[in-house]
Amino acid sequence: MTEELRWGQELRWGLIGCGKISHDFGKSLDKAEKPHKVVACAASSLERAQKFAKEHFPHATPYGSYEELLKDPHIDAVYVGVHNEAHCPWAAKAVEAGKHVLCEKPFGTCAGEVRQTIKRLKNRKTFLMEAFWSRFFPAWRYIRNIVDTKEWGEPRVVQANFGYPHEDNWRCNERAEGALTLYGLYVIMLSHYIYKRKPEKVSVIGAKDKVHDSDEWATIVLEYGPQQRAVLYYDSRTWLPQNAFVSFDKGHITLPEYFWCPEKLIRWEGETWYNNEHNKKTIEFPLNDDRFFNYNHSSGLRYEADHLYEQVQKGRIESDFHPLSATLEIVETMDEVRRQLGVHFPHDDRFK
Amino acid sequence: MTEELRWGQELRWGLIGCGKISHDFGKSLDKAEKPHKVVACAASSLERAQKFAKEHFPHATPYGSYEELLKDPHIDAVYVGVHNEAHCPWAAKAVEAGKHVLCEKPFGTCAGEVRQTIKRLKNRKTFLMEAFWSRFFPAWRYIRNIVDTKEWGEPRVVQANFGYPHEDNWRCNERAEGALTLYGLYVIMLSHYIYKRKPEKVSVIGAKDKVHDSDEWATIVLEYGPQQRAVLYYDSRTWLPQNAFVSFDKGHITLPEYFWCPEKLIRWEGETWYNNEHNKKTIEFPLNDDRFFNYNHSSGLRYEADHLYEQVQKGRIESDFHPLSATLEIVETMDEVRRQLGVHFPHDDRFK
Repeated sequence: MTEELRWGQELRWGLIGCGKISHDFGKSLDKAEKPHKVVACAASSLERAQKFAKEHFPHATPYGSYEELLKDPHIDAVYVGVHNEAHCPWAAKAVEAGKHVLCEKPFGTCAGEVRQTIKRLKNRKTFLMEAFWSRFFPAWRYIRNIVDTKEWGEPRVVQANFGYPHEDNWRCNERAEGALTLYGLYVIMLSHYIYKRKPEKVSVIGAKDKVHDSDEWATIVLEYGPQQRAVLYYDSRTWLPQNAFVSFDKGHITLPEYFWCPEKLIRWEGETWYNNEHNKKTIEFPLNDDRFFNYNHSSGLRYEADHLYEQVQKGRIESDFHPLSATLEIVETMDEVRRQLGVHFPHDDRFK
Repeated sequence: MTEELRWGQELRWGLIGCGKISHDFGKSLDKAEKPHKVVACAASSLERAQKFAKEHFPHATPYGSYEELLKDPHIDAVYVGVHNEAHCPWAAKAVEAGKHVLCEKPFGTCAGEVRQTIKRLKNRKTFLMEAFWSRFFPAWRYIRNIVDTKEWGEPRVVQANFGYPHEDNWRCNERAEGALTLYGLYVIMLSHYIYKRKPEKVSVIGAKDKVHDSDEWATIVLEYGPQQRAVLYYDSRTWLPQNAFVSFDKGHITLPEYFWCPEKLIRWEGETWYNNEHNKKTIEFPLNDDRFFNYNHSSGLRYEADHLYEQVQKGRIESDFHPLSATLEIVETMDEVRRQLGVHFPHDDRFK
């Protein structure tokens, strides 16, 4: 059990990494329901941290190293917003420094690393969660409620598309960064979120980038039994509609752009065949003004921050909505996709 | 060259088959731009044909056999609306009887049959086309114009979903009827329509129905080169959104329900990432009132009828928009999908 937050007590955040996503996460806290405050930020140089603090979080203490930030006793929770390879190591150090941790996705480079890290941290006293922000959006909660209540019976199909032209500097197996970790991750996450278990079968059709030997695009079919499946597609060369749907026995939901951070959903009750407009209903979940963020719909990062707040307030060390077991299962599926595509990360050997 | 229609001359149709689709095709002619008239219909019994004529086309002559209808000298064109196995045989007989022919899709049960039929009819004097109605919808024409003019560069991805719960009486390999010929056909057709050539590679993930040994669902990836592909999905157990998109270098089109007979499309110019609403535009192509048809959007069957009229008027024996070579290529892809799924039609051996 963690030390509980008192009602209305401010949660003091330290940002590890002063990049665009740390900016957006920190700024989203202004829109949150719970009281959060960015009190420190750390970059690989003091100058960068100072510049970042001065521009965006003038009341925050800048640190020239992540270690220094972790020593700051005035920090309750740490947001790990660095590159993939550094997620697990810094999440672990932050936990060991007694901080609550929200760690960017994917939590680990491969299943081996995630398993080792979870084992290493099993006696922790603080909260640890992968920052799978999509899960906490009201539209995603709405769909999950249909799953949990079995309102429309069982889920049958998850389909999702995610793609846009991909900068080549992301194609780096050495750093565990590629199209799968950037886009594929989200379509796989959605499927795991709906079925709440590992697929029985993973089938992949896709291709590698010839120059970088990293993955370029893939169609992934996840089978959870004969009548439950996901048909997923990601592509790092082309603009795709970033949409998804989830079909149940008695209805389906479509998530328009952007399915992973949606402001609305469309529900179709019953058959979608005749008179299809009659059983169609759009439900809106508007976000705040997004103009001052780097990424689309980033103000929605606040939902995961509020979830962490609530969980910490309950004295939990793991999320009851996105537990570490789910994080591990997602990365296991990603490993299998890479295996079938022939994409090898050096981390696969390191964490065997 | 066929005998040309005079300007404004009525094209007299005979319907082979008095089922729901023949009804809808005949009724759609009332909404057509060109002058068409249903003058005869034939069923497997005279009583059925008489009942059908009396109820729906009171001025049409009913025939108790297809042969009798083909002998009627007052018929210019024949619509073949019977079951799959009978498409090629009756289309061929109608051509040999000197009629123009619009034959329901799939034109043949397998590539062998299509090849044999085309060869057999190569010296014909009348027009012959597969009734691939989707091609002639204004929304499909609009997309094809983007392809042909290269307005947005090259097409890069076609994606389409088609599925709804499937009656078991369709699952019949003996009659060449299954989920592939009912749904899979449409998603494959869209891809062939956009790329205008055979795919270099066909990859399939799917499953068979255990009772009937017919195909049940499949994800089909068609590759036309390293940066041109289609990612298709059909499913005969579940209601899916019946939607599609086509992505180009500099924009994409989404086709909402029902992509194969759409009343509108949404075009996205350029990047679909930031400020995505600014470059989004919906274009409507409303159909006529569909209440008196059996199937959704059936009034749009008129577009293919008008195309046939125009082609006959030009003295053509084959469509310049949907030639028999395209029909053959589509069925070749379907054969390969069946081969990978392990679905065998007895026709495969018969037309080797």
